[in-house]
Amino acid sequence: MSQVELIKQLRERTGAGLLDCKKAIEEANGDIEKAIEILRKKGIAKAEKKIGRVTKEGIIEAYIHPGAQLGVLVELNCETDFVARTDEFKKLAREIAMQIAATNPIAVKREDIPSEVVEKEKEIYAAQAKEMGKPDHIVERIVQSKLENFYKENVLLEQPYIRDPSITVMDFIKQHIAKFGENITVRRFARFRLGEE
Amino acid sequence: MSQVELIKQLRERTGAGLLDCKKAIEEANGDIEKAIEILRKKGIAKAEKKIGRVTKEGIIEAYIHPGAQLGVLVELNCETDFVARTDEFKKLAREIAMQIAATNPIAVKREDIPSEVVEKEKEIYAAQAKEMGKPDHIVERIVQSKLENFYKENVLLEQPYIRDPSITVMDFIKQHIAKFGENITVRRFARFRLGEE
Repeated sequence: MSQVELIKQLRERTGAGLLDCKKAIEEANGDIEKAIEILRKKGIAKAEKKIGRVTKEGIIEAYIHPGAQLGVLVELNCETDFVARTDEFKKLAREIAMQIAATNPIAVKREDIPSEVVEKEKEIYAAQAKEMGKPDHIVERIVQSKLENFYKENVLLEQPYIRDPSITVMDFIKQHIAKFGENITVRRFARFRLGEE
Repeated sequence: MSQVELIKQLRERTGAGLLDCKKAIEEANGDIEKAIEILRKKGIAKAEKKIGRVTKEGIIEAYIHPGAQLGVLVELNCETDFVARTDEFKKLAREIAMQIAATNPIAVKREDIPSEVVEKEKEIYAAQAKEMGKPDHIVERIVQSKLENFYKENVLLEQPYIRDPSITVMDFIKQHIAKFGENITVRRFARFRLGEE
């Protein structure tokens, strides 16, 4: 494959800019998989810098699961109206809505989980560990470890992404932050299942 | 117009049963508008009897306003899956979602408005009336009357229906209760406007 073709393919697969792709191909000596890895690392490095920037624009997106017994409403924010209007941003919002439909998270971030809920969980874990006769310093470690698992299951951004469980939802969003060159945040969501409160 | 044609037209316009339409046409001496009025009264009378029945079935519906800066998620309940699956029920759910998008209600029913909100409103009305030098017994009446207006503006079921402000949203739902022969309830809704909390 010529370098031009390699760059073209790399751009298609990563959505990265021409110059970045050219550099990555050179750095990887024409190995496209290695070039993707290089871009991905740089992309995420770039993305990290964007996190924390103010996100005032965005869209509201909904997902109604076939059968209409389950629905999700989500607000996804970005920095500019330009990005908010793209089909790809809408697609990302829809992916996140589907994730929420499938996994029923309690909150977007761990800080958003009510402290009563966290305290209740900790009490249960501690009681279970004590029941098993564990000494106090071990109990504390078990509680912390179980709490981390609880967050992974119930915090949207920490959940494994449904279409690629090797990354978290936050990683998936970071890929888009790198691609769009803008910070992206999930502001809030609502999830209704028929008859549930 | 023959009686058969009148009945046909009446059925199309009201969705009522054949026998009910025949009786209404006879009672109205062939005056179709009067027949509609008769059916409407009976329909609502019938609907009133259905209110309070358990509604465990239904659907979740969403409405995203063009531009995607505003979205609504709503749960609409009925008694049977049979009704829940009809296009007309879905249409009703969508109408209600659009109503919520347009009018931004605080709650479905007045009982669902947090008592702090009601108390705060009452305080403001009382302060305004006292400011105008009204005596205490008048102040109380003014507060009650303003509170009723507050409910009409902020309680979904008491709001004027956006497509026909001569009836309330509850009246509009009652027409469907009469038509479907089942109780229908709005269980809950979420409304997101970009950047609002």
